[in-house]
Amino acid sequence: MVDLLIHNASQILTCAGTEPKSGHDAGEIGLVEGPENGAVAIDAGKIVAVGPEAAKESADEEIDAHGGVVLPGFVDCHTHAVWIGSRAHEFEERGRGVNYEMIAKRGGGIRASMRMLREASDEELNLAVLRHLDTFLELGTTTIEAKSGYGLSLDAELRSLRALKQDHTVEVVRTCLAAHSIPPEFDDNRDGYLDLVCDEIYPAVVEEQLADYCDVFCEVGVFTFQEAERVLLRGKELGLRPRVHAEQLSHAGGGRLAARVGAITADHLEFATKVDATAMRDAGVIAVLLPAANYILDQAERPSARSMINLGLPIALGTDFNPGSAPTQSTPLNINIAVTRFGMSIAEAIVSSTINAAHAAGVGDRVGSLQPGYQADVIICDTPDYRDIAYRFGVNPVRTVIKHGKVVCDRAAQSR
Amino acid sequence: MVDLLIHNASQILTCAGTEPKSGHDAGEIGLVEGPENGAVAIDAGKIVAVGPEAAKESADEEIDAHGGVVLPGFVDCHTHAVWIGSRAHEFEERGRGVNYEMIAKRGGGIRASMRMLREASDEELNLAVLRHLDTFLELGTTTIEAKSGYGLSLDAELRSLRALKQDHTVEVVRTCLAAHSIPPEFDDNRDGYLDLVCDEIYPAVVEEQLADYCDVFCEVGVFTFQEAERVLLRGKELGLRPRVHAEQLSHAGGGRLAARVGAITADHLEFATKVDATAMRDAGVIAVLLPAANYILDQAERPSARSMINLGLPIALGTDFNPGSAPTQSTPLNINIAVTRFGMSIAEAIVSSTINAAHAAGVGDRVGSLQPGYQADVIICDTPDYRDIAYRFGVNPVRTVIKHGKVVCDRAAQSR
Repeated sequence: MVDLLIHNASQILTCAGTEPKSGHDAGEIGLVEGPENGAVAIDAGKIVAVGPEAAKESADEEIDAHGGVVLPGFVDCHTHAVWIGSRAHEFEERGRGVNYEMIAKRGGGIRASMRMLREASDEELNLAVLRHLDTFLELGTTTIEAKSGYGLSLDAELRSLRALKQDHTVEVVRTCLAAHSIPPEFDDNRDGYLDLVCDEIYPAVVEEQLADYCDVFCEVGVFTFQEAERVLLRGKELGLRPRVHAEQLSHAGGGRLAARVGAITADHLEFATKVDATAMRDAGVIAVLLPAANYILDQAERPSARSMINLGLPIALGTDFNPGSAPTQSTPLNINIAVTRFGMSIAEAIVSSTINAAHAAGVGDRVGSLQPGYQADVIICDTPDYRDIAYRFGVNPVRTVIKHGKVVCDRAAQSR
Repeated sequence: MVDLLIHNASQILTCAGTEPKSGHDAGEIGLVEGPENGAVAIDAGKIVAVGPEAAKESADEEIDAHGGVVLPGFVDCHTHAVWIGSRAHEFEERGRGVNYEMIAKRGGGIRASMRMLREASDEELNLAVLRHLDTFLELGTTTIEAKSGYGLSLDAELRSLRALKQDHTVEVVRTCLAAHSIPPEFDDNRDGYLDLVCDEIYPAVVEEQLADYCDVFCEVGVFTFQEAERVLLRGKELGLRPRVHAEQLSHAGGGRLAARVGAITADHLEFATKVDATAMRDAGVIAVLLPAANYILDQAERPSARSMINLGLPIALGTDFNPGSAPTQSTPLNINIAVTRFGMSIAEAIVSSTINAAHAAGVGDRVGSLQPGYQADVIICDTPDYRDIAYRFGVNPVRTVIKHGKVVCDRAAQSR
């Protein structure tokens, strides 16, 4: 007797395995087919059995998947979920050919979001974050990594991370991205801002247990390789494991840096070379690709996903949810873009948005897969074939969301 | 006293005007701002007043827009809504570099959908179409133009158009696209298929009042300029007004053809030149651009939207909803893509998806605008700023859908 049994699924994707998937396993989704096998048994908030053996269980509660696809809740391993206020006008300007760097130069971009965040009250900011999380959940995302980085002062960075510590169904892994940009008050004193990050912000974040990771935007015109290395090593010293925004708009060395400092991930990677990818693989760094941002910036350059897979470098996908280059929480659309623009298979993109993303978020030992002992974070999609999650784009395929074994979102129930 | 009053909108977009908008008016959305003015009065299924004067009306029923944006239901003026079966594998192959023409050459593409449609029962086909229409409605589309074109035989083309004549809330304007491709049984006898279209299919379509328009895929490897002209002139003779699939993958003359035969629209237009656009404008042809297909095919070429607007050529947008190059019903995402890839402003993209699309569908005299006398097809979006419809992509912004003055879809009510 178990607490909950999901039955009558046309397909289950277990995404099982305890290591990030790469090389030949990169698209190994663990497909279980046929309604007679299509069961997941859940007890005490955890998966206890999947497939034919689960189908034999009796349960206190049953959910009929109605021939849908059952898979792990999506994990979004790269988001900037603390922001407030619209930058829709910049989005329109980019369509007219004004590029990201030009917008940043005249005070838009990260600084525009910084001003709006600093001006918001705690209540406004907290509410904005909760609404962002609601939308993640509706679209089937049950765990996210989320970064600060629009505060850029001691106070505003701490407020940002506290906003991410609020109670919500979506589980949040927190990263301090104080090194997202130099704030205007330090325009003439870059080192002064780096001192602030290293000597005040990071220690305060650690003291208040507001984050487990640190991150830096290593890019021409933002932070140099040396500056980025300095902050990441300081973070590491204080117990914050590094991540790196790397090789997005130019080849600035972030991939190599990630390998050198033992980062958990290097993210973006449009300009990463085979040498970078090899160094990352050898150092155990996961490659986080961000399709939605690549699409919205209409970048000619694409990360070399196929080459990374062939090298045995694990790929995880994130939406990059942020007010400038990716105001979307949709992992289903992100998967579509990864297939369309990066040449990934649908199965690879799903693995990269579940078990591999869980590893990239640092929770791959308990989240991102339907295997016994893992958290019962499960979604049911309204289609008989998992490939429709990517193929039929621009719609929300997710009908039911289950977190820790409890139904937390059910669109089917609403429309009946 | 009116039947229905929508009040407390933060913004209303009337998109008012009786001609397709072009040139300086291309982005003229008719913005009414402020909750005190944010009212739409509806009586007997029609708009009777908008803005401050509407706010004074008393009504039998009131809908609180809760500070959302109120605008005309979207019109999707180019869809292939009659199809069944998935072509997800082709979508994956394209990501790996196999192009559209290669897929078509070995029996995929239109022919794959043709086989699945011909094998489906009437019941299966009818149900598939109704499910497609349900999704249009959820995403705020209240009127579509829809084409046959996966039947490619007398029987299967008629069955396709009958499937589009079913009773559904979404209003459907029907087009016979028998000239979508040469079916395999006519591989050695192209003229034989053209004879079938001209002498049997079109007359039967007209006889049974199954369509008001005819259409042809004028493209290298599909139908030549001369072949396309032949079928369109025959259609016109029988009372079917022409449309043209033009200049999508090469410069095959479809734009010029549309002007020459007095087509209502020329559609796609990635390779259209300024000469083509000028000829279209002078002949009163509307340019229908299809952002979702341009995105999914990851085309380097983009239609010259800005140049068309400057020339005074009206632009309408369609999703191109079809199983090959655009399996999406989402006008909100389509608008995002038009801004991202075609450099349109958000306002221009919304005008192109409402009043201009209504003109392109041939119903611009009664649909696509909130002005007195027009059909009360209205949507309420869950945001205070219309620009969010494009900016926050991958989510469904539409909360409430009203058709002929009746609420037909209400997500807010469902989630409470």
